[in-house]
Amino acid sequence: MPRYRLTVEYDGSGYSGFQAQDGQPTVQGAIEAAVTAFCGQAVRIAAAGRTDSGVHATGQVVQVDLDKDWPAATVMNALNAHMVREGVAVLDCAVAEGGWHARFSATGRRYLYRILNRPGRPALDRGKVWHVRRPLDVEAMNAGAAHLIGHHDFTTFRDLACQSASPFKSLDVARVERVGEEVRLVFEARSFLHRQVRSMTGTLVEVGLGRWSPDDVKTALEARDRAACGPVAPSDGLYLTGVDYG
Amino acid sequence: MPRYRLTVEYDGSGYSGFQAQDGQPTVQGAIEAAVTAFCGQAVRIAAAGRTDSGVHATGQVVQVDLDKDWPAATVMNALNAHMVREGVAVLDCAVAEGGWHARFSATGRRYLYRILNRPGRPALDRGKVWHVRRPLDVEAMNAGAAHLIGHHDFTTFRDLACQSASPFKSLDVARVERVGEEVRLVFEARSFLHRQVRSMTGTLVEVGLGRWSPDDVKTALEARDRAACGPVAPSDGLYLTGVDYG
Repeated sequence: MPRYRLTVEYDGSGYSGFQAQDGQPTVQGAIEAAVTAFCGQAVRIAAAGRTDSGVHATGQVVQVDLDKDWPAATVMNALNAHMVREGVAVLDCAVAEGGWHARFSATGRRYLYRILNRPGRPALDRGKVWHVRRPLDVEAMNAGAAHLIGHHDFTTFRDLACQSASPFKSLDVARVERVGEEVRLVFEARSFLHRQVRSMTGTLVEVGLGRWSPDDVKTALEARDRAACGPVAPSDGLYLTGVDYG
Repeated sequence: MPRYRLTVEYDGSGYSGFQAQDGQPTVQGAIEAAVTAFCGQAVRIAAAGRTDSGVHATGQVVQVDLDKDWPAATVMNALNAHMVREGVAVLDCAVAEGGWHARFSATGRRYLYRILNRPGRPALDRGKVWHVRRPLDVEAMNAGAAHLIGHHDFTTFRDLACQSASPFKSLDVARVERVGEEVRLVFEARSFLHRQVRSMTGTLVEVGLGRWSPDDVKTALEARDRAACGPVAPSDGLYLTGVDYG
């Protein structure tokens, strides 16, 4: 029974998140339906990141176990053909090494958060960016982000519904840059708590708007209190861009 | 009666082009309806470029004549408020100088054509790019594009329905570049013939795929025959990015 490793892109706008839920359109549901349409097999897939409703991906990694030994290119083309009407596309497909697991073998996850930082609202990128009208101070945001890098108790930046056993995580990268009219935030870690990226982003935007000082981020982190977090950024601007293994 | 100059962004996917047509959703119709909703006035607007169905804009320029002397910021905010459900956004608004006309005063128009050049189909940019699976040779495309620069009879690259009095145009810029997974074509001219950019792009893609040599573009141009054109590129990847005046 071969295991396939798929790299998947999706527009999260039309989906109630990655994870299958009865009666809701989900990315998992779309891929599983395509597998069934392709080979008749009922499957349960797993992914590196269970992204929330409205969150996008350019490099999600998914595993699919099939009964038959299909060429990887056949699996990719068949799934794409069965998802033409979906906002989901398989970008790459390979047979996985023995013992590899899309979620448990992952050693790093990368997220991008896109903010459209201009007075005019988005017409072309509706649902794909967070629109912040007032100019953001990227330098101050980077100074705030620097306090988040490292091994910390991230209780402040964790959703109350988070099911992780521990609030401790190691944040390897937290960087803010301006690219034309956009302000982009990049985060990398072995793994993240529930809504951690959106909680950190919303807080750093408070710094960018001058409502918080960069040091207020340190104070919030050290409070280990969800109530100390800034507003949580909307799902629209968030992208899972890549997953590392081994 | 002040004339306002608006810079407008739109997602052409949901519109039957810029120009108003009875019973069809158009960009012109959306803006005119917003003006009426704002100040009760029935207006006829004009634009620098009458983009086709499905074509996008990041820098279209539009003129609106209003009976009353509103502050420009008021006009911009009101139109945006009345277009929240539309894929159209006003990015800038200013009172125009006397005699200025959005279409007839324009001295340059800039277009971008975006090709997603990878095996996997687009999920995030559906309707926003042309998907070409096989790798494009950008160097060959640039060599082909070089033949188009200058003052020429562009009959080959002009739609049969084009209403321009003359097939002669001066193409100032025709440049192809790779940006990540995208191949982008940039064209600049005082004005273009109907479907000229999509006709040139489709032809240059034939060069990029190795089906045409760069010199075949010169031969096609010199034929002054619509039948000598390559396939016309789809509207999805085309963007009016800017208009120059004076």
